[in-house]
Amino acid sequence: MSMLNETHDPALRSWVDSAQREGTDFPIQNLPFASFRRRGRGEGWRGGVAIGDAIVDLAALHRVHPFEGQAAEALAVAAEPQLNALMALGPAHWSALRLALSRALRTGSPLRALVEPCLLPQSEAEYGLPARIGDYTDFYTSIHHATNIGRLFRPDQPLLPNYKWVPIGYHGRSSSVGVSPQRFHRPCGQIKTPDAAAPVLAPSRRLDIELELGVFIGPGNALGEPIPVAEAESHVFGLVLLNDWSARDIQAWEYQPLGPFLAKNFATTVSPWVVTLEALAPYRVPFERPADDPPPLPYLDDAARRDRAAFDIQLTIGWQTAQMHAHGQPEHVVAQTNYRYAYWAVAQMVAHHTVNGCNLQPGDLLGTGTLSGPEPHQAAAFIELTAGGKQPLTLPSGEQRTFLEDGDTVVLRGWCQAPGWARIGFGECRGTVLPARAPAV
Amino acid sequence: MSMLNETHDPALRSWVDSAQREGTDFPIQNLPFASFRRRGRGEGWRGGVAIGDAIVDLAALHRVHPFEGQAAEALAVAAEPQLNALMALGPAHWSALRLALSRALRTGSPLRALVEPCLLPQSEAEYGLPARIGDYTDFYTSIHHATNIGRLFRPDQPLLPNYKWVPIGYHGRSSSVGVSPQRFHRPCGQIKTPDAAAPVLAPSRRLDIELELGVFIGPGNALGEPIPVAEAESHVFGLVLLNDWSARDIQAWEYQPLGPFLAKNFATTVSPWVVTLEALAPYRVPFERPADDPPPLPYLDDAARRDRAAFDIQLTIGWQTAQMHAHGQPEHVVAQTNYRYAYWAVAQMVAHHTVNGCNLQPGDLLGTGTLSGPEPHQAAAFIELTAGGKQPLTLPSGEQRTFLEDGDTVVLRGWCQAPGWARIGFGECRGTVLPARAPAV
Repeated sequence: MSMLNETHDPALRSWVDSAQREGTDFPIQNLPFASFRRRGRGEGWRGGVAIGDAIVDLAALHRVHPFEGQAAEALAVAAEPQLNALMALGPAHWSALRLALSRALRTGSPLRALVEPCLLPQSEAEYGLPARIGDYTDFYTSIHHATNIGRLFRPDQPLLPNYKWVPIGYHGRSSSVGVSPQRFHRPCGQIKTPDAAAPVLAPSRRLDIELELGVFIGPGNALGEPIPVAEAESHVFGLVLLNDWSARDIQAWEYQPLGPFLAKNFATTVSPWVVTLEALAPYRVPFERPADDPPPLPYLDDAARRDRAAFDIQLTIGWQTAQMHAHGQPEHVVAQTNYRYAYWAVAQMVAHHTVNGCNLQPGDLLGTGTLSGPEPHQAAAFIELTAGGKQPLTLPSGEQRTFLEDGDTVVLRGWCQAPGWARIGFGECRGTVLPARAPAV
Repeated sequence: MSMLNETHDPALRSWVDSAQREGTDFPIQNLPFASFRRRGRGEGWRGGVAIGDAIVDLAALHRVHPFEGQAAEALAVAAEPQLNALMALGPAHWSALRLALSRALRTGSPLRALVEPCLLPQSEAEYGLPARIGDYTDFYTSIHHATNIGRLFRPDQPLLPNYKWVPIGYHGRSSSVGVSPQRFHRPCGQIKTPDAAAPVLAPSRRLDIELELGVFIGPGNALGEPIPVAEAESHVFGLVLLNDWSARDIQAWEYQPLGPFLAKNFATTVSPWVVTLEALAPYRVPFERPADDPPPLPYLDDAARRDRAAFDIQLTIGWQTAQMHAHGQPEHVVAQTNYRYAYWAVAQMVAHHTVNGCNLQPGDLLGTGTLSGPEPHQAAAFIELTAGGKQPLTLPSGEQRTFLEDGDTVVLRGWCQAPGWARIGFGECRGTVLPARAPAV
């Protein structure tokens, strides 16, 4: 399902002019899915597909019944308020709908007259979560992040002995996952400074981000029935950007022995557009596992895909203070990284998660973990970029930052681009920190 | 809402004879809720209330419209397939429905002729999960368990410095929570023995249990709005028994640095009947926090309830091997403990979970963590009862056990009993281990 086909042809053009605009995230080769409605009209949520600056309203399209067979079946459920039922259908249906949409949106399509009335401008839209997220699991797939963070917490043993064997993951909180643009209050929590005798309840002073990708699960598995790694990608609908906001001071005091909890579960932001694995097919690249590292255990070794298990997705972190916003200055890119540096692949996350029989469900969300690369400017969390808060960043406004101040906005972006192929973008994942509320006592 | 009222009167009698049977878990003073249907009839799920050996079918009762006001409003949603909407209504509605049911089921009730046709025998029923569980969080509220386990993993520092300050918790997996009786396959996972150079994928050899209580959340809170500890219990619908099955060998290798993951998420079993906090009111007892321990931080200190924040709930773990089952031998009680030994109260779990703004939703599940008491026979996990697998238990069949063998069944039971009050029981929480499946490779 993730092989190249006519939908990837870089020569394709759409009758939607903005789909040809230089630098658009949403050319006709992308066609990502979201849940949306027009702002301020009391409308219901429904599925949409991005094309240039527009959205194809899939509920409206479904009403004119333009497709047949699996594409029509997929369109019927893609029109629903959230995409769980579409995700549950599986790759054959996803591909059929993608192909039908690609053909309908091409220059010269005989369906143009049917489809054009179903277009809405993205500027009028607001987005919902793409799916009802049953469970959210966060992985830890960047060996560079694991090493950088480990060095801060355990200088003598930055990388734990299990890292190169186990795709480390843990359960996150699904109720507080929100969609971009998300605004949330700075969390309060127990904080104990090293020299204090006791902790205090206070607003976090070390509020951080983690740049990740999110993975939306397609068809699930029954409890007790593992998903083999060779089949794992057929259980993946697509990817989004994900910001795993993290309160480092709360984390440092609470995380032993059972892992992060309140340091993470106050907010997690995802981008609205789910980019399908099929759209990413031209950007598959080999994993670069050092030759002297242990090979993955057989249940994690997808031999047929070793040369294309990773994705060349460029990722940036932008920082905009309230002052920059007031002066019309856009966010400033403070880090650039790439998903290809991850140590564990999407298929390995799925196979590992289910090897004990744990059941995944359509719409479940997996996070990749912080996607830091090997170079210092590729660190994907501020705690890494600022050496644990010791080396402030200077922004174009002249302001300095280690961790987030109230009013700061963080914008994550992601895209694939390479000569000979269409750019495939993720849009943006934006979040703003509001002041802490007075603790409830 | 959790004060004593006429529903707690130990002199109450029901026209359902079995509700007076010596030792019943479900006298008229209890009235716990479940989701049920009759087995093998293709019926839909609906809410039910236990009375003696019977179930009041709340969907059938709703159709005859016996109640008015808040009781009728609560009954209308209690008739639904799962109890989320009832949980969302809050304590005033729960109490009104409980009072109306108590009066309707009493000897001499004029409603008997209306209600009696709505009774079904429990022997014909099967149970569903009481609620759609959005998120499941597992706490660690027994200081005795934390110390016992800590001694096995960290002999030099059994209890971590944060324990007496932070109600430690972490996110669990909601998709694999099932209802008693649950049968599941022994999980496979990465296991690395201390003398091995590398891990292998194999069935767990150290499959364990954890006896806990589960807490079903009632009305939730909006993201960003903490629940004050003094209001926390009004967000709690009731309690169930919970078995947090745990693969200790998988856990030992995977759990650093982000906590348990595949060691826990293959299955979690809850008992079907949710016992309301109101039913437990006669069994409130003070917390016994040692005088030289630090007092809870203000956001965790419910001063008005300090003398009744704990519950005197007796708990047992029963073990039945396949051989015992074949010979008609019931499960053998290998440990007895009590919820009163917990270090953190239900209200403290809720207040802590939300102090950072994290949102709880109706039907969310909190686990108390393993409820070990101070004495060796009060250990609530086999790893504690058998000194890390070094001291086998001998069962009445002559068989020895450290961890679970295939075909073993574990039965958790819980009840409150004290002179002058009616017994309030939880029923049972039963689970059976099936053989591992061949790993998917």
